[in-house]
Amino acid sequence: MSTSKLDELCINTVRFLAVDAVQRANSGHPGAPLGAAPMAYVLWDRFLKHNPSDPRWPDRDRFILSCGHASAMLYALLYLTGYDLSLEELKKFRQLSSKTPGHPEYAPDRGVEVTTGPLGQGFANGVGMAIAERWLAANYNRPGYELFNHYVYAIVSDGDLEEGISSEAASLAGTLRLGKLIYLYDDNDISIEGDTDVTFTEDVAQRFQAYGWQVIGPVDGMDIASVAKAIRQAQAEVDRPSLIIARTVIGYGSPNKAGTAAAHGEPLGEEEVRLTKKALGWEYEEPFTVPPEVLAHFRQALERGRRLQDEWQRRFEAYRQAFPAEARQLEEDLSGDLPEGWDSGLTDLFQSADKPLATRAASGQVLNILAPKIHSLMGGSADLAPSIKTYLKGFGDFSPARYDGRNLHFGVREHAMGAIANGMALHGGIIPYTGTFLIFYDYMRPAVRLAAMMGLRVVYLFSHDSVGLGEDGPTHQPIEQVLGLRTVPNLVVIRPADATETVEAWKVALQRRHGPTALVLSRQSLPVLDRKTLAPASGVQRGGYILWEGATTPEVILIGTGSEVHIALEAGRLLRESGVAARVVSLPSWELFDAQPAEYRDSVLPPGIKARVSIEAGTPLGWERYVGSEGVAIGISQFGISAPYQVIYEQLGLTAQRMADEALKLLGGGRK
Amino acid sequence: MSTSKLDELCINTVRFLAVDAVQRANSGHPGAPLGAAPMAYVLWDRFLKHNPSDPRWPDRDRFILSCGHASAMLYALLYLTGYDLSLEELKKFRQLSSKTPGHPEYAPDRGVEVTTGPLGQGFANGVGMAIAERWLAANYNRPGYELFNHYVYAIVSDGDLEEGISSEAASLAGTLRLGKLIYLYDDNDISIEGDTDVTFTEDVAQRFQAYGWQVIGPVDGMDIASVAKAIRQAQAEVDRPSLIIARTVIGYGSPNKAGTAAAHGEPLGEEEVRLTKKALGWEYEEPFTVPPEVLAHFRQALERGRRLQDEWQRRFEAYRQAFPAEARQLEEDLSGDLPEGWDSGLTDLFQSADKPLATRAASGQVLNILAPKIHSLMGGSADLAPSIKTYLKGFGDFSPARYDGRNLHFGVREHAMGAIANGMALHGGIIPYTGTFLIFYDYMRPAVRLAAMMGLRVVYLFSHDSVGLGEDGPTHQPIEQVLGLRTVPNLVVIRPADATETVEAWKVALQRRHGPTALVLSRQSLPVLDRKTLAPASGVQRGGYILWEGATTPEVILIGTGSEVHIALEAGRLLRESGVAARVVSLPSWELFDAQPAEYRDSVLPPGIKARVSIEAGTPLGWERYVGSEGVAIGISQFGISAPYQVIYEQLGLTAQRMADEALKLLGGGRK
Repeated sequence: MSTSKLDELCINTVRFLAVDAVQRANSGHPGAPLGAAPMAYVLWDRFLKHNPSDPRWPDRDRFILSCGHASAMLYALLYLTGYDLSLEELKKFRQLSSKTPGHPEYAPDRGVEVTTGPLGQGFANGVGMAIAERWLAANYNRPGYELFNHYVYAIVSDGDLEEGISSEAASLAGTLRLGKLIYLYDDNDISIEGDTDVTFTEDVAQRFQAYGWQVIGPVDGMDIASVAKAIRQAQAEVDRPSLIIARTVIGYGSPNKAGTAAAHGEPLGEEEVRLTKKALGWEYEEPFTVPPEVLAHFRQALERGRRLQDEWQRRFEAYRQAFPAEARQLEEDLSGDLPEGWDSGLTDLFQSADKPLATRAASGQVLNILAPKIHSLMGGSADLAPSIKTYLKGFGDFSPARYDGRNLHFGVREHAMGAIANGMALHGGIIPYTGTFLIFYDYMRPAVRLAAMMGLRVVYLFSHDSVGLGEDGPTHQPIEQVLGLRTVPNLVVIRPADATETVEAWKVALQRRHGPTALVLSRQSLPVLDRKTLAPASGVQRGGYILWEGATTPEVILIGTGSEVHIALEAGRLLRESGVAARVVSLPSWELFDAQPAEYRDSVLPPGIKARVSIEAGTPLGWERYVGSEGVAIGISQFGISAPYQVIYEQLGLTAQRMADEALKLLGGGRK
Repeated sequence: MSTSKLDELCINTVRFLAVDAVQRANSGHPGAPLGAAPMAYVLWDRFLKHNPSDPRWPDRDRFILSCGHASAMLYALLYLTGYDLSLEELKKFRQLSSKTPGHPEYAPDRGVEVTTGPLGQGFANGVGMAIAERWLAANYNRPGYELFNHYVYAIVSDGDLEEGISSEAASLAGTLRLGKLIYLYDDNDISIEGDTDVTFTEDVAQRFQAYGWQVIGPVDGMDIASVAKAIRQAQAEVDRPSLIIARTVIGYGSPNKAGTAAAHGEPLGEEEVRLTKKALGWEYEEPFTVPPEVLAHFRQALERGRRLQDEWQRRFEAYRQAFPAEARQLEEDLSGDLPEGWDSGLTDLFQSADKPLATRAASGQVLNILAPKIHSLMGGSADLAPSIKTYLKGFGDFSPARYDGRNLHFGVREHAMGAIANGMALHGGIIPYTGTFLIFYDYMRPAVRLAAMMGLRVVYLFSHDSVGLGEDGPTHQPIEQVLGLRTVPNLVVIRPADATETVEAWKVALQRRHGPTALVLSRQSLPVLDRKTLAPASGVQRGGYILWEGATTPEVILIGTGSEVHIALEAGRLLRESGVAARVVSLPSWELFDAQPAEYRDSVLPPGIKARVSIEAGTPLGWERYVGSEGVAIGISQFGISAPYQVIYEQLGLTAQRMADEALKLLGGGRK
């Protein structure tokens, strides 16, 4: 059999494994695999540096299927090249507990580099991976010892390019000259509503040239020689990311559906599967057939991968001899472990603080104490570094002039920032953090959700966290955003009350290995709580704690978060003056508190005490969980107001007097 | 005084009104007004078709300050040209209850066309306005009677162009050939983190050419002749939107801050204000000085505007004679009133439905019954029309070939879709609706929030509303999104249980004049509730209602929304078999229910009945409000699962049996 015959058989095997999987599941997307299998095959067969036996090898090429709906094609490739994914799993496509869910779900031990599906995310994740690659290379490569030199490949679709996030990421990738980024654009002219002419007539090549990319093609995406040549050309360009425009036919081979939207998102149907197989010269009647010569050919990836990684491993051992300190540091970075003493100097940082401090400013100080100790800590803001206090002083900017810099300038691109941070975390070697105003969490929600879903350690700094930001007004004042963060599964949200709680919040964030953490920070200055008379800030670790008691047996519980803890404290003191025993609870993190044993929770919020008032400068929705049916949640159920913040607090009734009054009303029944 | 001297004085008046306002507020953004005042002046003085005495004149040009942080400049222009905005208001910039909030807030009666601030939104809003203009022109203009022929102008900033939403909107505007769109790009090279070189090196001109725009410049944005020439060139191009690249200096004139990030977001300081005035030859010591000749010049806008609108009005009266039916229809479209009989044929639509129907399919039927009656109803999906059932059959596609079409193809651009719908609603004459999967609400949240803040009538169709979508898995399965919608002030969220509730949901949405409505729809088929044995679907209008009672005196209340109402009903029947009297409440809309009088709410959820179980296939957070401290909220606190949906429901415990069991447990104490 000639090579090209074998190639064709390999490509058709990928195609029909995908088509059969979709057909068996009676659900899924056959069109993209039929059209994109040739480019995927040539990439995986001729170029991809990977070791199916060790999917975590740090210097492997990264492959992203940004159009995640083509998942069955990825699973076929993983199975064929020898990853821990059996043919049986392909037969269980989209079924409960299979390793082959509807869209790829991050599985670092079996070659799924990233969860994709929501369009544009994978595109931007790759930019983060390419940043991580350049950063590690700049930090650790030494002449003769090249530890990091890998590509980031992605297959991207029309939909990926239509989503704004890809524009944001592409523009930044061009600015940063990420030459190791190579994207294959599956240009098939078809979207769900029909021909892309209806909505997508832009000149993609020109657009990407404008971003500073090398654009190759259009090439015939069904012709593997053309694709191979394009990939080589992309590799040859070291200074610019490359976009290969590969013209394909969606649903290729399907006599009645090829080139139409009908091929996109539903099974072809048994008869059409048969016709398609016939049209493409596929001779096997049995679904899920893998010709032995095909399997043998693909499985060469195992041997090749082992050899490549062995070479790398030897290089690394030599490196360790020559550069022991660097090798140790690299291993630490890659492990994700925090170094001995990483939190020294933090606990007492604000103990003798004598003037008010915004929690964003406290966070900036903490970050700059952590930075020299935690080498892998790297990040920045979406053009708000001076406001969010994200700059690591003395650690340089990550830029083409200096890829070892640790400060990223994301630009006014919150959505890409989130997805790029995901890519950095996915790559490994970096603990990324991001910064923007809390209101712009709305711009980046899809990326935050995916970080939580994948269990990535990303730290989000969200400042200007309430109407407390003042004059910028309702467009900038979060109302529903703190609760919004709390609703995301596996995201921990901490809204510290002062500088000392901010220290603890950072500690929690860094120690969370398998999920992101959002720190919700104030713009306005807040008094530093006097821990000599109040409970220690370490209570943050448990999510909520008794901060202050007006008397040994409380009659009423006042609960606050963030800047409003100070109002609750003031209300507690007012109540004491009225002879009422109040307890003030600081509840910076619902997730951490809810995860405590019931005994602890009940000790903080005794079920017997029904008189409870909470205060938070945001929607009161959800607070019923803590104040109960009989309690009162003081919050804001409207959009904000442009005015100095003290005026806004008065105007919206976020005051200690109101809180004390509500408490007295609740106690009213039982008291004179 | 020569014209150019007067021009200069006018420009400096705009500049220093803005600078003085920022300085007095001790908060705000002086840099953009100093640099952009010349282009704003020339646009308003020489080109803008508007009538300050009637800011609602339908054929006025629209002006959008997409970089809303330059608000003080807009207020200065509004005051100077004679809108209902006094100099006193400028002095109260950013203060409580002033007409001059920190960012422009939609005020159609005083010339603020749109709320801006979150970057990129204004850019995309303008695309919606330009769509509305073309649509009205195509529908109503007749030879000799041109009722609609106006421009949409915007000043946009670096930040606007960095945000992905502007890419989405620009690409669509190019595809749709919106030649009346003219954007001035205030290209000042500065962002908050410093020079845009750090993050924004793309070739903006080339990028916009790729989108199919005419790009003019760069021109000297400080030179009004150059800007005027560019605007004329933009007007001459009828087939493409135009981007005028106007080079400016941020903080122009400020000796110590011009051209730096320091000029952007904080007051210059009194001394620097003095120096800036001196540098620009401004001779007036008193802040807020308006030289009389300047005011006289600007106020000519009043006379000019009246004349222009009078001409239009005469044209319209002649039109009314010649085309009475069209004139009536136009007036109806512009009024936003629903026509007589708009909802006929709806109430009984599904009364004799005998097979299950997804609520998205029901919505599609409703929409197609409404479309012939409500001429202004217009919209579409973000490349998901066949899934969301948004297509209006027989009403054509809005396209360059046919601007009177009523179906929009937004492309895979949810964020722009939301903002474009806002622009259409802002323009007037259109009731826009949008469609996408509920999970992609996350992509468009900032636009939805602004619709709610501005009080716009936009209808959002969000289908595939839960794990009930099945195999596509967690990336596509909403968990926190329904609650997320509910947290937005002034947004009404309705999750109908079946086709009959879907009818009512649509009725609510269309009757809400001053706020958006989200319809949360199922992918999966749902039985049509038998209204002969159950309460009527009109209960939806009150947000929640008693659907079914197992006995006259209920012991336990079961609450459900959407697809889970059927589970609650089943649980109610199971309980009846166990001899327990359950009440089943359908609660499709929290906002509508919470707005009912307490007596009604207490009649549905009697405070005395503490045994309550709710079920919703989403986060249980927030349900405490309805089930109380002693009740149980069945929901999903994790990400979803890829599998057939029936399997997922079982797996996650979303079953009638579980619900009945929980109810029995709650009653356990008091029962054998």
